[in-house]
Amino acid sequence: MKCYIIFAHPNHEGLCYAAFESLTKGLEAAGHELKVADLYAENFNPVLVFNETRRRRDMQHDPETEAYREAITWADHLVFVFPIWWGGMPAILKGFVDRVFVSGFAYKYVKNRTSGMEGLLKNKTAWIVNMQDAPAIVRFIPFIMHDYGLVLKKQVLIACGFTKVKHFSIASVRDSAPEKRSKWLQTLYKLGDTL
Amino acid sequence: MKCYIIFAHPNHEGLCYAAFESLTKGLEAAGHELKVADLYAENFNPVLVFNETRRRRDMQHDPETEAYREAITWADHLVFVFPIWWGGMPAILKGFVDRVFVSGFAYKYVKNRTSGMEGLLKNKTAWIVNMQDAPAIVRFIPFIMHDYGLVLKKQVLIACGFTKVKHFSIASVRDSAPEKRSKWLQTLYKLGDTL
Repeated sequence: MKCYIIFAHPNHEGLCYAAFESLTKGLEAAGHELKVADLYAENFNPVLVFNETRRRRDMQHDPETEAYREAITWADHLVFVFPIWWGGMPAILKGFVDRVFVSGFAYKYVKNRTSGMEGLLKNKTAWIVNMQDAPAIVRFIPFIMHDYGLVLKKQVLIACGFTKVKHFSIASVRDSAPEKRSKWLQTLYKLGDTL
Repeated sequence: MKCYIIFAHPNHEGLCYAAFESLTKGLEAAGHELKVADLYAENFNPVLVFNETRRRRDMQHDPETEAYREAITWADHLVFVFPIWWGGMPAILKGFVDRVFVSGFAYKYVKNRTSGMEGLLKNKTAWIVNMQDAPAIVRFIPFIMHDYGLVLKKQVLIACGFTKVKHFSIASVRDSAPEKRSKWLQTLYKLGDTL
């Protein structure tokens, strides 16, 4: 399968980068074709600007984000690897969604649905791989705690037409033992075989 | 009261800016002291960078974000005005949280709590004013739809010690009638009196 891996963490020495590396190597070893966007390394600008002269409806043709739209179109499978900060995506990744998943490319407005939109990214699947300092339990008390990767899963990818999105959450990362970390990395390496 | 208003929308011609203006004027008319951060106008850089040399624990002294920390310390009351994009904050505001609400300033790590943190921003209150295209109902089905301003309310501000946070949501904004819009703006103007 054609996989597009989107990585969003500033530190190439930490666990999140190691997770991204293990996953990438596993996917490669399983014979999948890969493209990678390392948003920090590419200096991605996450600030969506629109106004009276720079219209939101024209963002689907924005040359600055064209390569990202092309890679998403090319891919059968997207993989997002990022830490949970304050319950959600790092700003650089939130801005990737704001700027790249635009109307006319990722969805279109329709009148006959409650959501008001129809997804245009059909026949694609995705994995979301999250690292979080908080314990695993927080994801399962949605009346109190929000997001933790679920906004990207349900309100972005599924809403844009993705058929299946799996969410992998690595919790209690802060001060975790080295043995635990290397187990996580092995599991991520082996994931490539399950795609 | 000392109010610090944080505004995050790129377009000064639209409803969100008008909402910010009405609210600001109302607060001024009610005699409150104001400071404003217009994140887009100030070209705020929302990308949190930390790594082996630029440590996360030192962010509380980051000179680039010092003015924002000082304004938060100065304020009794914070007001956030922003649109809901993809269920959450625009990237520029998410990055404001990532970069400004840092450990040692907004919270500290503690061992004896499930959350692992203790808020340091005590005796402050806040309002969150959101504009969203989606209908109001989406905020009330949290098992399906996440965030919609609640992450900022509960997982950031309350978690950092804020005593009371009120959330105002203006829904179904897309294609709303001019009379409806001017009513919203009047309501926001009058809010200043209730603080």
